[in-house]
Amino acid sequence: MEKKLSHADILQMDRHQRRNFVNTLSGIKNAQLIGTRSADGVDNLGLFNSVVHIGATPPSLGFIMRPLTVERQTYNNIKALGHYTLNQINRNIYEQAHQASAKYDAGRSEFEATGLTPYFSDRCKAPYVKEAQIKIGLEFAEEHYIQINHTWLIVGRIVEVILPGEAIAETGHVDTAALDGVGVSGLDTYYDLEKIGILPYARP
Amino acid sequence: MEKKLSHADILQMDRHQRRNFVNTLSGIKNAQLIGTRSADGVDNLGLFNSVVHIGATPPSLGFIMRPLTVERQTYNNIKALGHYTLNQINRNIYEQAHQASAKYDAGRSEFEATGLTPYFSDRCKAPYVKEAQIKIGLEFAEEHYIQINHTWLIVGRIVEVILPGEAIAETGHVDTAALDGVGVSGLDTYYDLEKIGILPYARP
Repeated sequence: MEKKLSHADILQMDRHQRRNFVNTLSGIKNAQLIGTRSADGVDNLGLFNSVVHIGATPPSLGFIMRPLTVERQTYNNIKALGHYTLNQINRNIYEQAHQASAKYDAGRSEFEATGLTPYFSDRCKAPYVKEAQIKIGLEFAEEHYIQINHTWLIVGRIVEVILPGEAIAETGHVDTAALDGVGVSGLDTYYDLEKIGILPYARP
Repeated sequence: MEKKLSHADILQMDRHQRRNFVNTLSGIKNAQLIGTRSADGVDNLGLFNSVVHIGATPPSLGFIMRPLTVERQTYNNIKALGHYTLNQINRNIYEQAHQASAKYDAGRSEFEATGLTPYFSDRCKAPYVKEAQIKIGLEFAEEHYIQINHTWLIVGRIVEVILPGEAIAETGHVDTAALDGVGVSGLDTYYDLEKIGILPYARP
């Protein structure tokens, strides 16, 4: 039975319903752990599902940061260090990764709390997650304040990508499903991916 | 075999390889048709895989618009009309939807070219796609110029959502897989979704 909900109808949902509804509405999203290091040297992990492709030239990615009305370790660390990492969540670590969304004190590393392993590479000052098959090192590039709800778009330039070489096809495609990548809908519902197929470049 | 690619290594790939590589790197994305209407009354559809959740209060979504160095019908129409729609691509229409990524002349409607059906509702001036199970009507709210590659973040306020009532759980969750929603990796690789499970709210 078709249902029409207006802006006012959505605002009238209770807070948790509305959060789940709007978060799941846009469909499947990727799930990433963002790795950062604080000025005090504490390694931090945060769970994000809002990573968006910005462009291939230069290679760059963005993500949405919640309002800075409370302390955001990920944000503070990115601004302090200039570097951060994106680590793709896969089937083997999604439960540990989900635990990184809990609110730990600033002095406690989510690596320790989740049992995931920090991994370092010369080109990036922030910690990667060893267990992630696709590791992306980024350098902060720009930020945009989104007035409608006080969130931020954070844009970074890719400084390094670490992944299994055999996962890159000759065409450049990386097959996320072959690497056991998962998708997330909303904040908590995880999905396996099964390839349907590759469609040719569309012409009129 | 682990492979490390630097920023320079990625820039040295050929244009098509680099486009595929960076587009697939961030994992699975949702696939949406954006419906708009031109000042001349021509209905337009564009294929987008960069829709991102902005917030639940007010309910709002964003997407990334390619540089305006060539004519962008979707952009021009959104600015002219103020309204646009997001239509979730499902298993039954993904091939037709993909065809909307072809470059048609401004006078030709992608509805006609793809065989998809326009659908109208009082609250939104732009056309929905009848065959989409989740239809979201938006009002343009703000835009942000991304300096790194001249793209734009377009943010809209949700004015209406049309979907099967039984798809909304009591918790507010919309199950995109139950509605045959698909994911896309890069620009051309489509995936079915299979639910693994819902994880509880994480606490330290």
